[in-house]
Amino acid sequence: MSFTDVLFGRPLASSDERAEHIGVSAGIPIFGLDALTSAAYGPEAAMTLLIPMGILGINHIVPVISAILILLVIVFFSYRQTIEAYPSGGGSYTVATENLGEGAGLFAAAALMIDYILTAAVGISAGVTALTSAVPHLQHHTLSICLGILAILAIVNLRGVKDTGAAFIIPTFLFVGSLLAVIVVGAAKIFLNGGHPAPIIAPPPPAATTVKYLGIWLLMKTFASGCAAMTGVEAVSNGVMAFEEPRAKKAQTTLTLIVITLIVLLFGIAWLSKAYGVTAMEPDAHHYQTVISILTSAVFGRGWFYYLTMGSVLLALSLSANTAFADFPRLARAIAMHDYLPHVFTIRGRRLLYSHGIYALTAFTSIILILFDGVTDRLIPLYAIGAFLAFTLSQAGMVVHWMKMEKHPGRGWHMFVNGFGAVATGITLLVVLVAKFVAGAWVTALLVPVLIVLMMVVKRHYSRVKREMKDMTPLNLTNLEPPVVVIPMARWDRIAEKAMRFGLLMSTDLKIVHIHSEDEPVGIEEEWDDKILAPIRQQGFPAPELINIPSTYRYIVNPLMDYILELEQQHPGRKIAVLLPELVVRHWWENALHNQRVQLLKLLLLVKGNQRIVVVNIPWYL
Amino acid sequence: MSFTDVLFGRPLASSDERAEHIGVSAGIPIFGLDALTSAAYGPEAAMTLLIPMGILGINHIVPVISAILILLVIVFFSYRQTIEAYPSGGGSYTVATENLGEGAGLFAAAALMIDYILTAAVGISAGVTALTSAVPHLQHHTLSICLGILAILAIVNLRGVKDTGAAFIIPTFLFVGSLLAVIVVGAAKIFLNGGHPAPIIAPPPPAATTVKYLGIWLLMKTFASGCAAMTGVEAVSNGVMAFEEPRAKKAQTTLTLIVITLIVLLFGIAWLSKAYGVTAMEPDAHHYQTVISILTSAVFGRGWFYYLTMGSVLLALSLSANTAFADFPRLARAIAMHDYLPHVFTIRGRRLLYSHGIYALTAFTSIILILFDGVTDRLIPLYAIGAFLAFTLSQAGMVVHWMKMEKHPGRGWHMFVNGFGAVATGITLLVVLVAKFVAGAWVTALLVPVLIVLMMVVKRHYSRVKREMKDMTPLNLTNLEPPVVVIPMARWDRIAEKAMRFGLLMSTDLKIVHIHSEDEPVGIEEEWDDKILAPIRQQGFPAPELINIPSTYRYIVNPLMDYILELEQQHPGRKIAVLLPELVVRHWWENALHNQRVQLLKLLLLVKGNQRIVVVNIPWYL
Repeated sequence: MSFTDVLFGRPLASSDERAEHIGVSAGIPIFGLDALTSAAYGPEAAMTLLIPMGILGINHIVPVISAILILLVIVFFSYRQTIEAYPSGGGSYTVATENLGEGAGLFAAAALMIDYILTAAVGISAGVTALTSAVPHLQHHTLSICLGILAILAIVNLRGVKDTGAAFIIPTFLFVGSLLAVIVVGAAKIFLNGGHPAPIIAPPPPAATTVKYLGIWLLMKTFASGCAAMTGVEAVSNGVMAFEEPRAKKAQTTLTLIVITLIVLLFGIAWLSKAYGVTAMEPDAHHYQTVISILTSAVFGRGWFYYLTMGSVLLALSLSANTAFADFPRLARAIAMHDYLPHVFTIRGRRLLYSHGIYALTAFTSIILILFDGVTDRLIPLYAIGAFLAFTLSQAGMVVHWMKMEKHPGRGWHMFVNGFGAVATGITLLVVLVAKFVAGAWVTALLVPVLIVLMMVVKRHYSRVKREMKDMTPLNLTNLEPPVVVIPMARWDRIAEKAMRFGLLMSTDLKIVHIHSEDEPVGIEEEWDDKILAPIRQQGFPAPELINIPSTYRYIVNPLMDYILELEQQHPGRKIAVLLPELVVRHWWENALHNQRVQLLKLLLLVKGNQRIVVVNIPWYL
Repeated sequence: MSFTDVLFGRPLASSDERAEHIGVSAGIPIFGLDALTSAAYGPEAAMTLLIPMGILGINHIVPVISAILILLVIVFFSYRQTIEAYPSGGGSYTVATENLGEGAGLFAAAALMIDYILTAAVGISAGVTALTSAVPHLQHHTLSICLGILAILAIVNLRGVKDTGAAFIIPTFLFVGSLLAVIVVGAAKIFLNGGHPAPIIAPPPPAATTVKYLGIWLLMKTFASGCAAMTGVEAVSNGVMAFEEPRAKKAQTTLTLIVITLIVLLFGIAWLSKAYGVTAMEPDAHHYQTVISILTSAVFGRGWFYYLTMGSVLLALSLSANTAFADFPRLARAIAMHDYLPHVFTIRGRRLLYSHGIYALTAFTSIILILFDGVTDRLIPLYAIGAFLAFTLSQAGMVVHWMKMEKHPGRGWHMFVNGFGAVATGITLLVVLVAKFVAGAWVTALLVPVLIVLMMVVKRHYSRVKREMKDMTPLNLTNLEPPVVVIPMARWDRIAEKAMRFGLLMSTDLKIVHIHSEDEPVGIEEEWDDKILAPIRQQGFPAPELINIPSTYRYIVNPLMDYILELEQQHPGRKIAVLLPELVVRHWWENALHNQRVQLLKLLLLVKGNQRIVVVNIPWYL
């Protein structure tokens, strides 16, 4: 078993495909981790904006979260429908392309690619930041730890979907389980104490009230920030093909379970916060704690369960990047199938997944992590935009989809749900864009068009290649004429003999080219008659032509190139076959002992050559 | 005129060779700078060891320098004879090889190569150190300035011998002229004042006398250190071929002039030091000055002439590295002619010199400068060793040379001079080696055998190649059988058609290989009969064979390689021609859009292939 096999698993045959398909229990960690961990930072993001309202802010948490949950339910129903309508993997890209046209599709593609790369970078970085604030003397190693986790994620994902699900199932259920325990026990205490539970550790006092009324702009910003809780919901729809049959059904069940869990978590956190009087803290405050930390301390105190919960949040956060690894390769493949990205993204690797997507995601993520030195706080505003752009386009696409399905039962209802969803997410997108434009949303606004232009350039190239290469006509065998064969020869030796023998097989029209420095005697002439011409004449072959080219400046490659191009001019319509004898050494370092002129010549012939010049490598093994 | 032409000069035709030859006046700066600048540090090196003797040390300077001068004269006569005996460039390497055998030659070669690389690094570094001690705020840029000077030297030398001579003639004569002025004016003052001149600026007082008598070990160390004044004398003998006719005569005149000047400078400095009571200062002393600086202040005071002299010393020192640039390429060429170094060193570049030697020297020198951060004081002891090893071997070689020339007039006298020289330099070598072993001479002692082993490995490789390639037999035309042609084909398109047409020209035995994933339908079968087989049958060609290979793990290259190797096994004695259709893109970045499988296959065929497998590139230009 090779090292590669140990690290990445043995290669999987194409016929193993079915066995690699996953069920609901593996689907939740693979496609749900990103959505579920939103519960850890979504409510907090909304509550942070309510800090200036002090104790009054508490009353607004549940309504704001409820509004977000309504939007979440609409988006959920929309994606459920999408999965049913596009069982072969209906991400926003596919839905937008098929219903709204290529332009909208590219828009969704660019937004989603940026979203996934940011998800991976921000997810890893958030987990590591939590770790280093707990263990400060790791702070110097932030970037190394980030890159280490990235490498682990890449390796686990390269092992295939099945192994990834197995690896992440425990962290996911630990995360969900501990948060649910906090909510259930907290709810019980609320009921038992008539709505006024006594916290085991009291939450920090709320800030002084500086804003008394929730204005429309603050409300919108709070809502927009809280929408971070919805990112990751589209993940399942991109990955339908990863599920076992009945594919659409399993994917829908997975999505339903993820969304129900998310709703329970989000609502529970909001409700408990209100009941316990928990407000968010400024991130730069002394003894800063997250809302989850305050809530857990209030319900359970600071025992082992507190540390288990905080540990599982940290672990789940840094693994939430995995959703990007699950979806990015599938998205890149779908785009590449339409010729908008390099075709390598469509190749299934040794473990039956689109490995080049994983390589690309790993590369881009590590670039971002290195650029930001592992601390990506500033990127957080950026990445809700990609998600909401995708939501909006996908649902608008579904509206068109239902419009076309004239006889589908419940068509009107479907159209209403998706239309409402599109409008709601569209408005949210605008709010996020306006609220966060200066904070960094402009980067996304700039990157999306750049990516779209790049994809169009790629498409144009592939279209040209396809147009030029397509040849549905039968094989044309007219004008089959043997090529003119050119053999560069420095001296008469065994490799020259090998080239001559091969050349005589190909054509009767041989040109032996000998380049010599103008102040040196012609090196090959003494052997030419006896050793070369005589045997050829004896066997009745036509005599090859010896071309001596004196080189004024001692260059070898240039005069040879000139001669070949001139010969090609003189023989219009005929092929020129250049036979290049090449020494193959046993050890790589031995290459330094030989002139690399043949390599240079090959390159030049490729670059300066044309359709009629063919290069034949005659290897000589030492 | 291209940028390259402006920087390095236009290419020179081989017929321009004669015009590139130099006379005596260019020969002195090119081959003499290293030897002449020895006057700036040689006497000081000896005098530094006499510091513990205080004022008593003054009496020993002239005798020690006189002993060194006697050795210098012997070495001079020896090299004069060498030039005459080997007018085609008789460096120590050639002389040792031809007279003492390959082993001694390699010894001299290794010693000289190390010597030249060190000369270049130490020369540049010494000049820059002098500059930065004068202008301290340049100290942070020591390495950059060193590398800058190295780049200038490399560029000037790449322009050819003639341009190099022209560039260095003024610094050389300025250096020699100002030192001579100090000596002549100083000598006049000594005579006018009856042997007791009054210094304009008094030399610093000598150190307290702690050693009263000059013991044999201190004498030997002083002598060995002073011998640094002799390095560079062998340079002319390596470069005889650079001179115009009468070659040997001009080289001898150049050498004579260099040595006479050097003798005057060395003796003058020693004599003036004694008369003015100048002793050397510890380099880390407060207000440290070099002996030259003390002498010039004593004779001329601190006027403009003092600064001119010090400036010219500094400039000449940093340009003394140029001697290495003049000689190293010629030495490397001589070694490569004997197959002990890569053959590229024998190729004359666009300006008629052995450019690869200049590249190699520049690379090694910059590595040393970077490793030592531009401060190479510690390397100074190393580099007299290479020089004296070369002196000794060269003169021992000359003794053998004269022994063979039985009828040469004055043979006995020649043998005596060279023999005496060999013994004297040999003893000096031993003294330097023992005196400096711990200080760093062990590095040279270690590097020399390593280099010798490397050169022997290179030689073994070339010998094997020559043995295998040599084929003085006439062209063998028996068993000329057309190859089996293999064409990998993914789909039927225009490039596949081009490959088929070329394949049919080469052989009637065509194998079209189609690799398909085992879960996909065979992609080419529908077109095979109509579009390919039918026209071939119609033209009366034998039908090619279609080989469908299902690939379990979706690999393309591996199954193809396996098939080709198997085919080669099945057809012993026949050639296998693999036709590889290759897309040639217009822009380099477009390569990323195409699978680089053809490149991988080419590489694999070269590495895993053998004598009977030939690769034919069928290019398709977009």
